[in-house]
Amino acid sequence: MPDMINEKIKSAEILCIGTELLLGDIVNTNAAYLAGKLAGLGIPVFRQGVVGDNPERLRAAMAESLGRADLLITTGGLGPTCDDITKETAAELLGRKMHFDQMSQNRIAEYFASRGCTMTENNAKQAMMPEGAIIFPNDRGTAPALAIEGELEKGGEVKTIIMLPGPPHEMIPIFEGDVIPYLQGRTDYVIFSRNVNIFGIGEAAAEQMLRDMMISATNPTVAPYCKVGEVRIRVTARAHTEAEARRMVDRQVELIKKTPAAPYIYDVDSPSIEDTVIRRLRERGLTLAVAESCTGGLIQKRLTDIAGCSDVFLGGCVTYSNSSKVTLLGVSAETLKSHGAVSAQTAAEMARGVRLRLGSDIGISTSGIAGPGGGTPEKPVGTVYVAISTKDGEQTKLLHLAALRDRATIRTHAANEALAQIFRI
Amino acid sequence: MPDMINEKIKSAEILCIGTELLLGDIVNTNAAYLAGKLAGLGIPVFRQGVVGDNPERLRAAMAESLGRADLLITTGGLGPTCDDITKETAAELLGRKMHFDQMSQNRIAEYFASRGCTMTENNAKQAMMPEGAIIFPNDRGTAPALAIEGELEKGGEVKTIIMLPGPPHEMIPIFEGDVIPYLQGRTDYVIFSRNVNIFGIGEAAAEQMLRDMMISATNPTVAPYCKVGEVRIRVTARAHTEAEARRMVDRQVELIKKTPAAPYIYDVDSPSIEDTVIRRLRERGLTLAVAESCTGGLIQKRLTDIAGCSDVFLGGCVTYSNSSKVTLLGVSAETLKSHGAVSAQTAAEMARGVRLRLGSDIGISTSGIAGPGGGTPEKPVGTVYVAISTKDGEQTKLLHLAALRDRATIRTHAANEALAQIFRI
Repeated sequence: MPDMINEKIKSAEILCIGTELLLGDIVNTNAAYLAGKLAGLGIPVFRQGVVGDNPERLRAAMAESLGRADLLITTGGLGPTCDDITKETAAELLGRKMHFDQMSQNRIAEYFASRGCTMTENNAKQAMMPEGAIIFPNDRGTAPALAIEGELEKGGEVKTIIMLPGPPHEMIPIFEGDVIPYLQGRTDYVIFSRNVNIFGIGEAAAEQMLRDMMISATNPTVAPYCKVGEVRIRVTARAHTEAEARRMVDRQVELIKKTPAAPYIYDVDSPSIEDTVIRRLRERGLTLAVAESCTGGLIQKRLTDIAGCSDVFLGGCVTYSNSSKVTLLGVSAETLKSHGAVSAQTAAEMARGVRLRLGSDIGISTSGIAGPGGGTPEKPVGTVYVAISTKDGEQTKLLHLAALRDRATIRTHAANEALAQIFRI
Repeated sequence: MPDMINEKIKSAEILCIGTELLLGDIVNTNAAYLAGKLAGLGIPVFRQGVVGDNPERLRAAMAESLGRADLLITTGGLGPTCDDITKETAAELLGRKMHFDQMSQNRIAEYFASRGCTMTENNAKQAMMPEGAIIFPNDRGTAPALAIEGELEKGGEVKTIIMLPGPPHEMIPIFEGDVIPYLQGRTDYVIFSRNVNIFGIGEAAAEQMLRDMMISATNPTVAPYCKVGEVRIRVTARAHTEAEARRMVDRQVELIKKTPAAPYIYDVDSPSIEDTVIRRLRERGLTLAVAESCTGGLIQKRLTDIAGCSDVFLGGCVTYSNSSKVTLLGVSAETLKSHGAVSAQTAAEMARGVRLRLGSDIGISTSGIAGPGGGTPEKPVGTVYVAISTKDGEQTKLLHLAALRDRATIRTHAANEALAQIFRI
């Protein structure tokens, strides 16, 4: 039986283990994920670290973290090779012996059998566990996750080490399924947040509109953060129960809706503009088709990132050449000749064309110059037209996105603006 | 004049400063970028860290890093507010006084003037610099970057701290333009790498084919790493000159081309499959059109991520509904009825249809079930057909991607397979 000590956790550190992180081969998304989740659980994180699989440096980093925080969460170093020493190091620091865990062994053997593979001798190492460990099974890989609790020195404070596998698709399900319930029993507070989604003004403008509230509000707190072309206002409350925290947040969100920022709020807690678009259209029983030039498929890719979008999104075209605008969308050759591909007229005909060809209620389009080449003095890089077409006709909007400089950012902004047209009708 | 000490740098640590990192609001791409660049400069990084803007914790983290490594690179904490204390902390640790730097003040004033804004008093704080600092101007923001060199205690080893702004679009140009030349004068070795691009086998299979070489090669080293659906074999050499390192790497790449992995090598140093596709088609003067169902615009988005793709990529369709497959691509209603939308026949007609409508040399298509809904016992989630059409006819391929589980990964694999068809013809 694991001997759970269950003292309250007041602070945590995150330590990610792996040479590929030290070499910069991969970006450390695990640290951001875990930090966000711990913030949500009301456990402050004061430091994050990355080390390789060198035994002395790993041991030093783990010992330092445990000297400062109650909880250390590690990712990586649970694999089958002799380089993987996280468990052994943790056991040594908290004075535990390693022993063979038959249940873990059985699960690993099952994992291999289900894939028609044979377990190697190396993998048996993954069934060695510190005595008294709480084991969190891994359904997507061979390395079980685990927690151990203990003292760095006899009579010292109780420390907890939670060890998770490195690959995010293994780590995240274990964290959500097993680690969160484990940690929830060990904190005093619940933290609850909502994000108010804002589009059409930048972070600085949003901050100015909400400055008084941001300064005066301490619980809930009100803080802006920005994604490309979008601002979110995060409202976070800390309380003894989730219901209470939720009430506090909801009250504050209502107050935000009475500030000058109100006209720019398009949703609350939406993961993305496209998610809100799909939901709104579904609620109203409307369908959408998309014609893209400069965004080159990005809008449609984002719409179809959302599972089940097919009741709303019928399809569309990527018309990168002039001839494809004529053939696929029925844009008139005359319009292309007299106004050019990057023009309000062409964008409007693209939106109308795709709506009529696919028989949707709404058509949207983009046509512009994403750069870095292709700009002219009259139409510099960053000149983008977006259009929307309904049975009532077409509306177009001209964007000047040159200040964004790079192609990817210009394309993302143009896609956001094209989608946001739908909120306005 | 800055007093440059210019001792050789043998090890470095990276410390990223910012509450938004600690809260998990943003992913730490700076650490990966800097780690990759330092590896390229032959400077080993043994630890990375993240701290907030708490003065005691920042000071402790910086002091610890300097106790272990010759060089500390920080990002963040150079802003105009009183929370921003990186410079002051660094100056104190290496025994430097802060002074007002007129050149920095002038540049910050110019930055504001060029944007039609007035400099606030706060921004003047950004012109305060440690005495003897080497200043790297920032063309994209108000915080200049800087380096200082000195001893932690009198007579101790020389330590260097390089402080960079947090936003990547400010940090990266400074690092590439000023910091790399500064560091190049302070290392003994040059590191050079090439990546061999492999498609069609997994990491484990690639590793098995190259195992002997991976074990025996020490300089250059040979190491695999994997992206979604793609494996790269990185060959890295360390030498006193770049020319020598380059020769060593090229020799090793030739040896890899003689292993059983050879048939799966599609390029060397390609940033992506789509990049190689565009280049190959351009070399041969061929054009491409794309019809996507389950990948929903992802393939076209990826092709148009590449600036200047329009001479090769003409355009295409996203046909998410049956009727759009008929209207836009001319898929026969009979085919859809008797074989279904997810079938080799439909995929072939989509590829042919988009090729003929757009008048391209090659058409490619995808039709499948990305999930999580929509699967049936005969066609479970992950069933995807890809097709390619040329004047010589159509070829189709059936993929079983159920083991990948999530929608995004299934879509990415399907897009990779659709693009990789082009290598085979």
